[in-house]
Amino acid sequence: MTRTFDDKLKDYAALTIRQGITIQRGQELVIFVPVFASDYARMLAAEAYAAGAKNVQVMYTDERMGKARFVHGSDEAIGYAPQWFYDGIAAAHGSGAARLSVVSEDPGLLGDIDPAKVGKWYGAVSGAAKKVSEIVGAMAINWSVVAVPNPAWASKVFPGESESIAMQKLWDAIFSVARLDNENPLQAWADHCDSLERRQAYLNDLNFSAIHFKGPGTDFEVGLVDQHKWVGGWGYAKNGVKNAPNIPTEEVFCMPHRLRTNGTVSSTLPLSLRGTVVEGIQVEFKDGQAVKVSAKAGEATFVGLLDTDEGARRLGEIALVPPSCAVAQTGLLFYNTLFDENAACHIAMGASYSENRPGIDDLSDDEKLAAGANTSKIHVDWMIGSKDVEVDGVLASGERKPLMRGMDWVEAV
Amino acid sequence: MTRTFDDKLKDYAALTIRQGITIQRGQELVIFVPVFASDYARMLAAEAYAAGAKNVQVMYTDERMGKARFVHGSDEAIGYAPQWFYDGIAAAHGSGAARLSVVSEDPGLLGDIDPAKVGKWYGAVSGAAKKVSEIVGAMAINWSVVAVPNPAWASKVFPGESESIAMQKLWDAIFSVARLDNENPLQAWADHCDSLERRQAYLNDLNFSAIHFKGPGTDFEVGLVDQHKWVGGWGYAKNGVKNAPNIPTEEVFCMPHRLRTNGTVSSTLPLSLRGTVVEGIQVEFKDGQAVKVSAKAGEATFVGLLDTDEGARRLGEIALVPPSCAVAQTGLLFYNTLFDENAACHIAMGASYSENRPGIDDLSDDEKLAAGANTSKIHVDWMIGSKDVEVDGVLASGERKPLMRGMDWVEAV
Repeated sequence: MTRTFDDKLKDYAALTIRQGITIQRGQELVIFVPVFASDYARMLAAEAYAAGAKNVQVMYTDERMGKARFVHGSDEAIGYAPQWFYDGIAAAHGSGAARLSVVSEDPGLLGDIDPAKVGKWYGAVSGAAKKVSEIVGAMAINWSVVAVPNPAWASKVFPGESESIAMQKLWDAIFSVARLDNENPLQAWADHCDSLERRQAYLNDLNFSAIHFKGPGTDFEVGLVDQHKWVGGWGYAKNGVKNAPNIPTEEVFCMPHRLRTNGTVSSTLPLSLRGTVVEGIQVEFKDGQAVKVSAKAGEATFVGLLDTDEGARRLGEIALVPPSCAVAQTGLLFYNTLFDENAACHIAMGASYSENRPGIDDLSDDEKLAAGANTSKIHVDWMIGSKDVEVDGVLASGERKPLMRGMDWVEAV
Repeated sequence: MTRTFDDKLKDYAALTIRQGITIQRGQELVIFVPVFASDYARMLAAEAYAAGAKNVQVMYTDERMGKARFVHGSDEAIGYAPQWFYDGIAAAHGSGAARLSVVSEDPGLLGDIDPAKVGKWYGAVSGAAKKVSEIVGAMAINWSVVAVPNPAWASKVFPGESESIAMQKLWDAIFSVARLDNENPLQAWADHCDSLERRQAYLNDLNFSAIHFKGPGTDFEVGLVDQHKWVGGWGYAKNGVKNAPNIPTEEVFCMPHRLRTNGTVSSTLPLSLRGTVVEGIQVEFKDGQAVKVSAKAGEATFVGLLDTDEGARRLGEIALVPPSCAVAQTGLLFYNTLFDENAACHIAMGASYSENRPGIDDLSDDEKLAAGANTSKIHVDWMIGSKDVEVDGVLASGERKPLMRGMDWVEAV
């Protein structure tokens, strides 16, 4: 029996609430969801209440409202983010509320706005939302990010299609990489996350000191922190909940040492960043710092990002994703990091995740820096892997072990 | 030249921001607006930014999302309101943010939900939102309430019409009572509020000790507090801003003494309350307290309201509205208090407004009670006036002065 769109949509809501968030009986849930997706938001709320949520607070987001600030707002408005708003959200999580972000961007929405203005506003938001970012970064609560299509985004992914066909195709792609084409989709998703855990165990056992990437425009070595831990798929929040922080996800990721990255690296996929598409990035790293940065498109936006703070020029994440994975196999460029980061090996500028270095939250700020953890107001992934980029693990002895060649991992797990 | 729908919509946004809120340069604005009205919300934000707002935070509301709680939620969920959310809003106003509520209800949305459940949830919200209510009640900041139609509401107001015709007619009615049919609508609105100020001066000069209502099912006297002040039309917020807290508004209103109301009063229009329509209310008051309460429809919801707390059985407002006014002249029953309270004289159960008794905010809680001010978590208006209800002012000497007969005030101002 063919599973209909409505079947899959219902399963998507169930997957999101039951495995993405793994909502607990009596727990609060804050959902950030686009204003145009209110019908789907109500499905999510119904699912969460049925699973015993104490409260579902839907905070509708509105990118186009955000644009009004840049078009009509004063300089003061563009440099301002409401602390009371982010403090309220931090208080929610502080009292135990889980967090779901349903994302859906128009990749080109802010293309006609001065990147300096956009950067100024993001800087204000990053500052006001610092406490929230720390809670999320530390996985203090169970949180998850999923996506729904919008017409502008769908038309960007499927140029030349009518809006309704593009929307349908983007829904199909989202369903597919969330494993919703399966008869028992929740089990299929769980199996997938379990397989990512086997890959982590493999990498953790090998305990590499660095990962080396070599391909067109790339010869690049990322040093890992000592006592690192590869994670991915399932997340283990500090409140004891096991959940899936990203749907889809194909990556296993680790913590780079903030001082031990060297060489030149080139992007292999466009990056949708702050309403602009950044393409053809090339960065030279020296002792962990991006010392030379260029991009063929969107350079000002990317450089603006790196100027956020000192840590924005250093790495907070390295992730390994084989080109054979489900997201990459769609053959699509999604213009959205939730998807595109799962189509290729990637690195992230900015803050590291403490789950990648057990015990690090018990250290002082100085000790964290000495351990190699990076801090920043930002965390932005960009894609550096492809079938033409070879990935090796480097052992402390200097010995190299081939990890990826062509489409896949060298060794199965 | 005929003014088009788009002309009027644009003027409605301008009226709302420039005279409803009177947004100040550098002030923040929090807008509560239904999720289906996002296009109009963006017009409001653009207008506010253009007027120099520092930040426009749109909190989209979603009645149907609220219903999910009652349909799918646990008992715990139904008795819970998130303190962190209301604390965040209180913090916004505490730091100076103005507040705009764009209301649009489906009058029958919760008709199939147990009123006890709805009452339980409203009780939780009232408790969590106490600080917000106090800020609004004290007019600490400039706030305003306006409305936009929705199909369910429009179809209730215009039964038998197609949904699109009903929507168009409800927009027309809203525009009309906001004086947007005029060539210079902002001036027309200002003239209207000025005329309400002349009526207040007239009543304040007379300094009545009570107001008496006599008509079918009604023989009822509302004692006023000493040193009372009739207000309405323009509001004067404590932050120094002169604005229009309600669009539309036709009322002048005053503070009843919490112990000095006696007699029997009957509703003259249905009351849309908590998703239910309450009709045929009759209440007997003794020494300020509602001692006998009945309604022909929605009685459980109305009685549930009065059981909120001790003050919910006493009056917090008395308002005089002539049947000749613009809202009444539409001949429509709006099933929404923002409009229906402006079609007839009305009273409100619950909290009084401190602007009706200058200096009262400087008194202790005991002194406030002694002065006759009522406190409650609720403030709900219901309509008691019509062309068949005579209204007299009662002077301290016992002398009576006829105020309203038939369609209008006895004396012009």
